[in-house]
Amino acid sequence: MSTNKTTSNWKDKLHEIIYEADTPAGKLFDIVLLVFIIASIALVMLESIKHIDNKYHEILYYGEWVVTILFSIEYIARVITVRKPWKYIFSFYGIVDFLSTIPMYLSFLFVGSHALVTLRALRLLRVFRILKIARYLGASNQLKDSIIASRVKIAVFLFAVVISSVIFGTIMYLVEGEENGFTNIPKSVYWCIVTLTTVGFGDIAPQTPLGQFITSIIMILGYGIIAVPTGIVSAEYMKSSTKKDKEIAEGKPQEELQLNTQSCSNCHASDHKDKADYCHSCGHNLHL
Amino acid sequence: MSTNKTTSNWKDKLHEIIYEADTPAGKLFDIVLLVFIIASIALVMLESIKHIDNKYHEILYYGEWVVTILFSIEYIARVITVRKPWKYIFSFYGIVDFLSTIPMYLSFLFVGSHALVTLRALRLLRVFRILKIARYLGASNQLKDSIIASRVKIAVFLFAVVISSVIFGTIMYLVEGEENGFTNIPKSVYWCIVTLTTVGFGDIAPQTPLGQFITSIIMILGYGIIAVPTGIVSAEYMKSSTKKDKEIAEGKPQEELQLNTQSCSNCHASDHKDKADYCHSCGHNLHL
Amino acid sequence: MSTNKTTSNWKDKLHEIIYEADTPAGKLFDIVLLVFIIASIALVMLESIKHIDNKYHEILYYGEWVVTILFSIEYIARVITVRKPWKYIFSFYGIVDFLSTIPMYLSFLFVGSHALVTLRALRLLRVFRILKIARYLGASNQLKDSIIASRVKIAVFLFAVVISSVIFGTIMYLVEGEENGFTNIPKSVYWCIVTLTTVGFGDIAPQTPLGQFITSIIMILGYGIIAVPTGIVSAEYMKSSTKKDKEIAEGKPQEELQLNTQSCSNCHASDHKDKADYCHSCGHNLHL
Amino acid sequence: MSTNKTTSNWKDKLHEIIYEADTPAGKLFDIVLLVFIIASIALVMLESIKHIDNKYHEILYYGEWVVTILFSIEYIARVITVRKPWKYIFSFYGIVDFLSTIPMYLSFLFVGSHALVTLRALRLLRVFRILKIARYLGASNQLKDSIIASRVKIAVFLFAVVISSVIFGTIMYLVEGEENGFTNIPKSVYWCIVTLTTVGFGDIAPQTPLGQFITSIIMILGYGIIAVPTGIVSAEYMKSSTKKDKEIAEGKPQEELQLNTQSCSNCHASDHKDKADYCHSCGHNLHL
Repeated sequence: MSTNKTTSNWKDKLHEIIYEADTPAGKLFDIVLLVFIIASIALVMLESIKHIDNKYHEILYYGEWVVTILFSIEYIARVITVRKPWKYIFSFYGIVDFLSTIPMYLSFLFVGSHALVTLRALRLLRVFRILKIARYLGASNQLKDSIIASRVKIAVFLFAVVISSVIFGTIMYLVEGEENGFTNIPKSVYWCIVTLTTVGFGDIAPQTPLGQFITSIIMILGYGIIAVPTGIVSAEYMKSSTKKDKEIAEGKPQEELQLNTQSCSNCHASDHKDKADYCHSCGHNLHL
Repeated sequence: MSTNKTTSNWKDKLHEIIYEADTPAGKLFDIVLLVFIIASIALVMLESIKHIDNKYHEILYYGEWVVTILFSIEYIARVITVRKPWKYIFSFYGIVDFLSTIPMYLSFLFVGSHALVTLRALRLLRVFRILKIARYLGASNQLKDSIIASRVKIAVFLFAVVISSVIFGTIMYLVEGEENGFTNIPKSVYWCIVTLTTVGFGDIAPQTPLGQFITSIIMILGYGIIAVPTGIVSAEYMKSSTKKDKEIAEGKPQEELQLNTQSCSNCHASDHKDKADYCHSCGHNLHL
Repeated sequence: MSTNKTTSNWKDKLHEIIYEADTPAGKLFDIVLLVFIIASIALVMLESIKHIDNKYHEILYYGEWVVTILFSIEYIARVITVRKPWKYIFSFYGIVDFLSTIPMYLSFLFVGSHALVTLRALRLLRVFRILKIARYLGASNQLKDSIIASRVKIAVFLFAVVISSVIFGTIMYLVEGEENGFTNIPKSVYWCIVTLTTVGFGDIAPQTPLGQFITSIIMILGYGIIAVPTGIVSAEYMKSSTKKDKEIAEGKPQEELQLNTQSCSNCHASDHKDKADYCHSCGHNLHL
Repeated sequence: MSTNKTTSNWKDKLHEIIYEADTPAGKLFDIVLLVFIIASIALVMLESIKHIDNKYHEILYYGEWVVTILFSIEYIARVITVRKPWKYIFSFYGIVDFLSTIPMYLSFLFVGSHALVTLRALRLLRVFRILKIARYLGASNQLKDSIIASRVKIAVFLFAVVISSVIFGTIMYLVEGEENGFTNIPKSVYWCIVTLTTVGFGDIAPQTPLGQFITSIIMILGYGIIAVPTGIVSAEYMKSSTKKDKEIAEGKPQEELQLNTQSCSNCHASDHKDKADYCHSCGHNLHL
């Protein structure tokens, strides 16, 4: 840690630029990154439009490679500057970063695979860090809490929706039959989900009176059903929200909102307190 | 009860394996059962897809029979090992089990009837027992309570939706007429339900300006209406949820969560306490 | 009141049968009436289906006339047995009863008008009286209260939806133009309402990239908007519901649920107390 | 202010008529204005319908010009009678008024631009002033509060919807391909938004089994997702509503509802107290 100090210093500086959004350099880096992400998604989208691709194929293709090479460099830099690279590589963002870079290289091997670069959209989630949206998200932990609290109930609920779809789908297959578009049971089940969720594409629609009658029942059922998850989330959110307000009213100490965006160069842990000097996870000096 | 002890012992053992999910053997049995249920549903679905059926008809057909015979054996075992078979036969699961087994035999008599085997999907509800989801469902009795509490109100509400559909459907039949797809009143009513529930297939759609104007009113009405059942469930759920929290806060004794999955071999009653030695319904020894 | 007592007696008896649902005769009358209403709606629906009408035209036609004549007699009986006929004639049910009877007679003059007999569906609302659903509706006055409390807010809200539809509809007309189905502005506005309410028939759909982009914005807007009326109703219902619970908890006297279905033969007022002997509105003896 | 008193007087009188709705003259002016706005929107709508335009082109065209000239005069009057015209010109209504007047003049230069006159719909918002709907809106500030309180959370939420749409849209483009209507990625993303918001036009619909399976997942996801913003608004509205009720119960002084519709002729400020004699913003005498 003291032998190759210059290297360490150089790495630490890069680490700060890449991983943090508090310093001007770090902020600039994040903004440039975002612009490139959006640009690269736009490139892929434009490329998929035939008449634009025919005209500007060269530009789009080279633009795509420029972005890919920049992302590759960034990825390597991220791996190098962290002390425990494996931890980054297998973290959520590590995997997303890797998947955002690789498709262009894969496109040499597999045709069409480079369209997967739109996975880069996931990198846009980084925007929350810059906007210090933590401020708001911290406040909306209630939302997270209420979704977690209602998770099992909603899962049970969706399970019930799927079972209903299988049964109603089969009935509709028997009633309507192939000649009216219900060519097989999986397709009927798909149609039933389309109907229960009130999406209703209309590519398949019941033609027989009996089929239309059963469909009416399915729809009215779906109409009543749609009320349930809404009610659950709404009530759970309300509860967690009321609870928090009460705690504030009672003068209970609230977790202070930490806007620190640093992440430890040793163990990649983040969520440090604003005044933290040492990593809360491995004790490494954050200001090195 | 003591004369033919060996038979009783053998039956009791089988009873424990089939009806309970606490012992390793019982758990294994339930998991194998679930795999077979899912496999059999998959078989029927695949069979309904023409080009797959053409290729693998033999395999699917024999697979279907294997599952049916296994289910038949299971059904008979269930009937034999219970002391009061009629109680099982006319219970919800008894009927579902019977309906899951019979369609293949019926297919000798009626063409197409074997597609009803997807009723086996209902057997999947057994999965809840294995997952000890009782833990969660016990907690979500609030959900059941709130749905029951709002049952009548939602029924009145849906009744109003149906009456509106009949009246608006007839008006649309008069306005649009046969040439625009509203060929008769029942079909118009069906279309009206499709519209009010915001499904909107689009297989039938108003073509005349007046028809489109009335449709606009129907949709805006439906938009306002959709708020009502959601509001009811949400509020009722909130109430029952708040009430429970209050009871906990006041130290009121809560019903303990019982995870016992045993069912009495004599009277088929379940929901025994975790430490129960005798059936709460008939006094029969549960550990025999 | 005492001179022509026999007539009065005869009238009062008929009044009790027709207007009340507490006596066996009154109950029977209401049930027979309901059966006839449902039968007559079914008749009209069947008549509108071509191939059924071709086969059974005579039966349907005469059945329709039988029902109409019975309803005419009933209407006249209702008018005669009430002491203040005009009050009945211009009451909600009076108008509905008249409109349910007249279409068949009108069908001599105007073709197609007899389809209006499905207005009889409104008479089905009488079913609530028999089922003594007042029990439940009385309990769900909260629902009525909450809808009334949120009425203005929802109206303002829907007004905003209509203005948005006019503006977005015009924009879409300019962007998409006649060649893509947006043939004129009213039709575009209609399409916009279809989209904002998430019905989405698909008979008209944007074809140009710009049109699809604007549509995306409209839909996401509609997605956010749908939350508002639901939230309002839900919160208002919750409030009125909590308030009532609190009143009960505080021992405040609750309005007793009155299941009396009598209506005064003099002034047609209903909602009498269960033990009432005289009309609360005109002082007329209810048991005459 | 005293030199050209007659002009000032004349201007002030006109100002009162145009900008206020309390005096009979002011009320009349506003109602006439509304009628003209609605008439002019109707004119443009009718003009866009081919067969009506062919028949009545002359009438519609001249009618349109009459309205435009009247609106021009009104606009000039509004500018003249205010002491600080620039403040009006760049206010919300100033811009709307300008944009409502200009399209007809622009139609000399650009074809089709005169359809933009439907922007006049925005002027309809003035109706709220006449109806003194402030009464209700004042009461429903809770609604505004709850929307503002949930603004960020809903934005984060919609952002998540957009990112999901980009990713799922790309996957569907790869799975379904051009031959099934998913001709390019932007179109696929558009389709994905159509599906997630449960609009479901059906102009594009998945044809391959895999595509239909992924669509099922998207729809069930969307079904669960639709619960979240509803729950948020509902809970926030509930909270702000409860808070206000509590304040009233505690006898906290409530902001009195001010129905004064005057606006200062000097600085264009409105929202004066009912008994105000001088502008709260610039001290100018309101009764001059």
